[in-house]
Amino acid sequence: MFQKHNPEIGARPGTLAIPPDSPFPKVTVLQYDEHSVDRFEIEDVSELRVLEDKRRVTWVDVQGLGDEATIRAIGDAFELHPLALEDAVNVPQRAKTELYEHHQLLIARTPQLDDSGDVRAPQVCFIVGKRYLLTFQERYYGFFDPVRKRIVAGLGAIRSRGSGYLAYALMDAMIDRYYPVAQRLSDGLEELEDLVLESPHPDVLARIRALRRQLVVLRRVAWPQREALNAMLREQTPFFDEHDKIYLRDTYDHIAQIAELIDSSREMASDLAEAYLSNVSHRTNEIMKVLTLMASTFIPLTFVAGIYGMNFEYMPELASRNGYFIVWGIMISLATGMALYFKRRGWIGTSPPPEFDTDNSD
Amino acid sequence: MFQKHNPEIGARPGTLAIPPDSPFPKVTVLQYDEHSVDRFEIEDVSELRVLEDKRRVTWVDVQGLGDEATIRAIGDAFELHPLALEDAVNVPQRAKTELYEHHQLLIARTPQLDDSGDVRAPQVCFIVGKRYLLTFQERYYGFFDPVRKRIVAGLGAIRSRGSGYLAYALMDAMIDRYYPVAQRLSDGLEELEDLVLESPHPDVLARIRALRRQLVVLRRVAWPQREALNAMLREQTPFFDEHDKIYLRDTYDHIAQIAELIDSSREMASDLAEAYLSNVSHRTNEIMKVLTLMASTFIPLTFVAGIYGMNFEYMPELASRNGYFIVWGIMISLATGMALYFKRRGWIGTSPPPEFDTDNSD
Amino acid sequence: MFQKHNPEIGARPGTLAIPPDSPFPKVTVLQYDEHSVDRFEIEDVSELRVLEDKRRVTWVDVQGLGDEATIRAIGDAFELHPLALEDAVNVPQRAKTELYEHHQLLIARTPQLDDSGDVRAPQVCFIVGKRYLLTFQERYYGFFDPVRKRIVAGLGAIRSRGSGYLAYALMDAMIDRYYPVAQRLSDGLEELEDLVLESPHPDVLARIRALRRQLVVLRRVAWPQREALNAMLREQTPFFDEHDKIYLRDTYDHIAQIAELIDSSREMASDLAEAYLSNVSHRTNEIMKVLTLMASTFIPLTFVAGIYGMNFEYMPELASRNGYFIVWGIMISLATGMALYFKRRGWIGTSPPPEFDTDNSD
Amino acid sequence: MFQKHNPEIGARPGTLAIPPDSPFPKVTVLQYDEHSVDRFEIEDVSELRVLEDKRRVTWVDVQGLGDEATIRAIGDAFELHPLALEDAVNVPQRAKTELYEHHQLLIARTPQLDDSGDVRAPQVCFIVGKRYLLTFQERYYGFFDPVRKRIVAGLGAIRSRGSGYLAYALMDAMIDRYYPVAQRLSDGLEELEDLVLESPHPDVLARIRALRRQLVVLRRVAWPQREALNAMLREQTPFFDEHDKIYLRDTYDHIAQIAELIDSSREMASDLAEAYLSNVSHRTNEIMKVLTLMASTFIPLTFVAGIYGMNFEYMPELASRNGYFIVWGIMISLATGMALYFKRRGWIGTSPPPEFDTDNSD
Amino acid sequence: MFQKHNPEIGARPGTLAIPPDSPFPKVTVLQYDEHSVDRFEIEDVSELRVLEDKRRVTWVDVQGLGDEATIRAIGDAFELHPLALEDAVNVPQRAKTELYEHHQLLIARTPQLDDSGDVRAPQVCFIVGKRYLLTFQERYYGFFDPVRKRIVAGLGAIRSRGSGYLAYALMDAMIDRYYPVAQRLSDGLEELEDLVLESPHPDVLARIRALRRQLVVLRRVAWPQREALNAMLREQTPFFDEHDKIYLRDTYDHIAQIAELIDSSREMASDLAEAYLSNVSHRTNEIMKVLTLMASTFIPLTFVAGIYGMNFEYMPELASRNGYFIVWGIMISLATGMALYFKRRGWIGTSPPPEFDTDNSD
Repeated sequence: MFQKHNPEIGARPGTLAIPPDSPFPKVTVLQYDEHSVDRFEIEDVSELRVLEDKRRVTWVDVQGLGDEATIRAIGDAFELHPLALEDAVNVPQRAKTELYEHHQLLIARTPQLDDSGDVRAPQVCFIVGKRYLLTFQERYYGFFDPVRKRIVAGLGAIRSRGSGYLAYALMDAMIDRYYPVAQRLSDGLEELEDLVLESPHPDVLARIRALRRQLVVLRRVAWPQREALNAMLREQTPFFDEHDKIYLRDTYDHIAQIAELIDSSREMASDLAEAYLSNVSHRTNEIMKVLTLMASTFIPLTFVAGIYGMNFEYMPELASRNGYFIVWGIMISLATGMALYFKRRGWIGTSPPPEFDTDNSD
Repeated sequence: MFQKHNPEIGARPGTLAIPPDSPFPKVTVLQYDEHSVDRFEIEDVSELRVLEDKRRVTWVDVQGLGDEATIRAIGDAFELHPLALEDAVNVPQRAKTELYEHHQLLIARTPQLDDSGDVRAPQVCFIVGKRYLLTFQERYYGFFDPVRKRIVAGLGAIRSRGSGYLAYALMDAMIDRYYPVAQRLSDGLEELEDLVLESPHPDVLARIRALRRQLVVLRRVAWPQREALNAMLREQTPFFDEHDKIYLRDTYDHIAQIAELIDSSREMASDLAEAYLSNVSHRTNEIMKVLTLMASTFIPLTFVAGIYGMNFEYMPELASRNGYFIVWGIMISLATGMALYFKRRGWIGTSPPPEFDTDNSD
Repeated sequence: MFQKHNPEIGARPGTLAIPPDSPFPKVTVLQYDEHSVDRFEIEDVSELRVLEDKRRVTWVDVQGLGDEATIRAIGDAFELHPLALEDAVNVPQRAKTELYEHHQLLIARTPQLDDSGDVRAPQVCFIVGKRYLLTFQERYYGFFDPVRKRIVAGLGAIRSRGSGYLAYALMDAMIDRYYPVAQRLSDGLEELEDLVLESPHPDVLARIRALRRQLVVLRRVAWPQREALNAMLREQTPFFDEHDKIYLRDTYDHIAQIAELIDSSREMASDLAEAYLSNVSHRTNEIMKVLTLMASTFIPLTFVAGIYGMNFEYMPELASRNGYFIVWGIMISLATGMALYFKRRGWIGTSPPPEFDTDNSD
Repeated sequence: MFQKHNPEIGARPGTLAIPPDSPFPKVTVLQYDEHSVDRFEIEDVSELRVLEDKRRVTWVDVQGLGDEATIRAIGDAFELHPLALEDAVNVPQRAKTELYEHHQLLIARTPQLDDSGDVRAPQVCFIVGKRYLLTFQERYYGFFDPVRKRIVAGLGAIRSRGSGYLAYALMDAMIDRYYPVAQRLSDGLEELEDLVLESPHPDVLARIRALRRQLVVLRRVAWPQREALNAMLREQTPFFDEHDKIYLRDTYDHIAQIAELIDSSREMASDLAEAYLSNVSHRTNEIMKVLTLMASTFIPLTFVAGIYGMNFEYMPELASRNGYFIVWGIMISLATGMALYFKRRGWIGTSPPPEFDTDNSD
Repeated sequence: MFQKHNPEIGARPGTLAIPPDSPFPKVTVLQYDEHSVDRFEIEDVSELRVLEDKRRVTWVDVQGLGDEATIRAIGDAFELHPLALEDAVNVPQRAKTELYEHHQLLIARTPQLDDSGDVRAPQVCFIVGKRYLLTFQERYYGFFDPVRKRIVAGLGAIRSRGSGYLAYALMDAMIDRYYPVAQRLSDGLEELEDLVLESPHPDVLARIRALRRQLVVLRRVAWPQREALNAMLREQTPFFDEHDKIYLRDTYDHIAQIAELIDSSREMASDLAEAYLSNVSHRTNEIMKVLTLMASTFIPLTFVAGIYGMNFEYMPELASRNGYFIVWGIMISLATGMALYFKRRGWIGTSPPPEFDTDNSD
């Protein structure tokens, strides 16, 4: 849950903590305006310096952080603030936004469920300049493919807008990915809802707890994202104009909706856990009732039988011809009496469920 | 609880996610001023372009979202922002308000209990322009019928006011519908209150939980509505004047009152669940007491009987003529001793409920 | 808990929802300045129009809302905003304040415990104008009698102050009534405190829950009142001058103190419920211990007796002359062994309560 | 917990609710500047009028509120606002600050543990004028003695500063007294920590609850104090200059630290209560295990013995010479089987506590 | 948890509460600019007065607070505000920031786990002037060694920046130390996660509680730190320029991330405790089931055996040749009947865990 490749304690700011298993950076460039699109990969990062283009938007996508020299070269090419570069490489971080003089940094994270059901949240770092956008990913994730296709195909308004709008579009594509994860967890809750009532196996509780844990992690990813987007909306920034902000507000609405969904899901998971426990306690109760019935009925009877199993030489009842049958009579009366008592206390027989006013239609 | 027909991940903004089972749009227009009212249906949406009327208020009500072309044509006729159109069609969303350059978007939702007791919250999208109001509903809901009647009948001030006041009147009619739902859930709580004490059947707990779940959903609908109305009141907007805002504040008071009612109901539902559980545990306790009494009393007696059921050749007591009666004496003393002990510990007999100072009159 | 006589859904604003059992309005007028006081009842509401008096304060107290025509006539006489009149008549509402152009509306509520211990909160509506004050009560409550006496007697500064100060004085008299209710609930808690430890009867828990419920309702009345007063203090209003606000701040301090008291009482009620439950569980524990002791001790003994009650033809022990006494020896050893084991586990004998450092003096 | 001597309901503002058992006021005056100190008691309160001294600070300390005429005379001498005088006399109140035209009112409270362990919080009212300070105490408390000594001895900067600094110094002396109370409660928690594990007697739980209750009351005293100090720091006031505020900020830090300590203590008290309950439930569990073991092992054996205690004329086993020994064999096998089963389920023998990685050193 | 060496109650402000076991102050000075570094220890504190150097940054590090005269001399040399000096010496305090006229005070704390697992949080006081920085530590902690090395080695930008940046660098080095502590507690949770399910020994619960307690203390250290950093960022201060604030914002992000991690860890610890308790209750349940099965099955059988162990002279069944076998038949039927009943109620045999849809891959 918490594995951060921090620089060592007291390291100087700007120290890059390269994630140990990140591949060698692959740098893809997309330059476009309304009329044309160029897409190419760059081998030698020094070429980046000559890429600047006042008329077109330049998007440099860095996949893989595994080589410090390359990363530093990219940072130099765009004159990035040392802290911005550090943030781009240090994973994972909280989603946030940071405004520097010549560029704005955004950290966004997208939740994914891995095979063991743990919530992972790979991070992407955006650095938005006036005419360019840099994105850093730890490895290739595919979050950006739909947007890249839209640019190449020239669909929508994206080709005629600046780097701020591009950042919005990529961010929005990432936020969209919260929905299926939240949906899956929500579906898991529905499934457990039925299991809780039918088969109160301890595994069901373990599963509820696992789900709650996933929701805690998901919440820890989603809320800073919500805050970061809110901060972007309130901030005066040269990199996002009013038009872009209308779109960002839409993205903010999405993440706010997801954050609320996570919170109600958490509440429901707690409810489920409670329901499970009260169901278990109901069963214990039922078992206790049977034990009490059996024991309380037969213990006195056995005592009576024990009495007449005694070997005293002088026990008048034993000689009586009807003694045996009278004892049977006493025992049956005793048993009936107990049964009636239990019945009166409501301990025998499952009472029918109470009638509810079930007319729920509005 | 969470079924949103989202556009696919990474779709470009403005993509319409038409709800799959929504009927073909039926477009009804109402144009009015103080002197006259016209009401007609429109078959060909292109007619909308010529509808504009500086002196009269034009209300276009779209029932059904089932045809993208029609929806887009309406959007074009009123020059709607692509995101506004997307919000109008994407259901369900959080209640919200969004200010665009030429119009303001409002999303409102109204809770309904369906047959299975689930809380549904159909959404209506309002787009308020200077002299027009557009409303989009997924299908015909009937929320607006009372207001439409008031306009046609010319009752109240509505005919002499602008599009902002019309939006308020429709919104208010929607908020009014929260009351019966909250009322029904509140009544359900009262009913359960009695059941909890009388018949602690697990179905009662299931019912409490269902109610709490309904309240969670209702809360998730009501709070964003409250926030959205609050945002509208604070916002500077050309579409609602000061006079309209006085009325909106009244609507805000209603939703605030409902939100508070929901919160206290939730608290009471939690209290009920606790009461149920402690009632169950009280019963278990009672059962335990009976078992303990029976077992603890008869087990020693049975032991005594067992002793004299042994077949040793030399057991002096057996030969004694009064042995049998002495043993009876011992047994009765033992039983009485146990009973007295239990009495002293307060385990026998239900103690009378404590006396309370019941003078509650003020 | 929630019975509001709402206008029907979608009714136009300003529709009056006359409470069904409210008596016919009785209108009492008090006009005063430093030198003189006039007090009279009005039969024909149209007389109100000529009452205006620039030099004197006019207080019109309406007791009973049972006639729509009269209420509307009063509204017309003072040119009230339709929403203000609606708020005056719709009961119950949240405490609030609303500023209109020519008058300010205040809703205040005062808690009362009725005979069944339910918290009622009758509402009074104040409409404060420049030189007049209107008060609407559902029926005669007597909240205002002390202030009316002070005006007539000319005590205090009230005769020389305006309508804002009069509104403050009446409001303050209402807030004062929170104290005895909060006090009674707080006393109820103290009383239960002792009962919880002495007699853990389920009625005690029911009573704690009832108290908590009363506190929930009281809180729902008190917090909006606090907010409303706070809003009045922050608001720029022509109806309350700085001097009046100093007094209102005092009233605000009272309601804030009450709100805090309610919150700690709620916390203590929860604590009490927990204490009750742990006390019950302690008793169950004690009962279990006795059962275990009796059963665990006698079950093996009974088994031994059972052995020698068998009728095998060849059982060497039976023939032994000391067999019977040896068995007794074995049984006594067994019982002693069990008792020692239980003693060692701390299950026999109630351990003395631990010693605390009881020097609490400061 | 809540005994306020309120004026009667609807009393006019400024009515003094003299605490019934407060002694007759003793009025002590201290006048000082850098060069000289005068200290004297005043018998006739009218002398106060001539005390004013532009160059020196005048501190009038009123101990005891038991005479309304005297209190009113003091109020008149300093031209106090009627509400300020009312606040000075009404005990107890929330800590607060109130700014009047010619003076500022501060209410401060200091917690004390009385002999029965209840938290008392005597109140002191400060009224700060330009060159004078009035303090009202219900009786002599001794809070101010250290400061009085510092003034007389001329220690520190206090002699050269104004009335605001004097108010700060007295307030600070009061806040200092929170520490030992919070410390004692915190120590009580530590002591209980051990008891919970060693001897889960119900008195321990009662004690935890008492402590939690003390913390609730302490919190109710400390938080308004914190808020009041915060309000003083933010407020523009002619009675405290920037220099005084630096010192007040220090006092604010103290009360904030105490408030936080109270909150974590409350959390720990809740934790302790939980620990107690789970410890009790663990013991119940242990007892259940023993009962189950004994009963489940011996009940079948007793049954077997019962079988061969039957008196049927034809029971082939009874005649067998080895029957008795075979039955013993069967019983021993049964007992061993049960024991093995219980062992396998982990119900016999206390498993050793799990090994933890105990290397906690950093 | 709360051992503060406070000055005595009512002591005058600026009184130094020297921690009793703090060593004699060792004063180390580091003076540097871009070109040179001087490092020396000072024996006679009066030398500090001549140290001032407009061009170079002077860092005076005081290790040990054990001599009041030395501390006061340092305070005089830098003309520190008496409260600043008091804060520097009083340990522990909440992290905070305080702006004085000529310098800014910062209190920072760093958590450490001591051998017994308690969270300690030694405090460092920073006093930042225009060209100098004073740091006060209770004893040598080694927090600053990495930064000192960087200055001496001339690494990074630190040599070319002012005293504000130096304060940032040291603070950042301290905040970095939160990570390993939070990491260790987080790891401890993971370890307990498994133990809870495998061996629900009460020591596991004790350990969970200990961890929760550590987290409570850690939270109490981290949150004020977060607030203090936030206050520094918002404050207008001459000691930190915009450039320094960008770096401080980075440090703020770290502490915010840690604070969030602590909060989710606390939530998970609560979850674990719940899981432990429900696991224990599941086990009790299992034990109850076995007891019920054994007792309910054998008690009736034993009763039957008891019947035919009675010694009545006339019991027709005893004489029957097949009586014994018929009784066996009855017993076996009874036992089978009970077993079937238990099976039907789901009390026999552990039901297989329910199948989950385990496809968690996204």
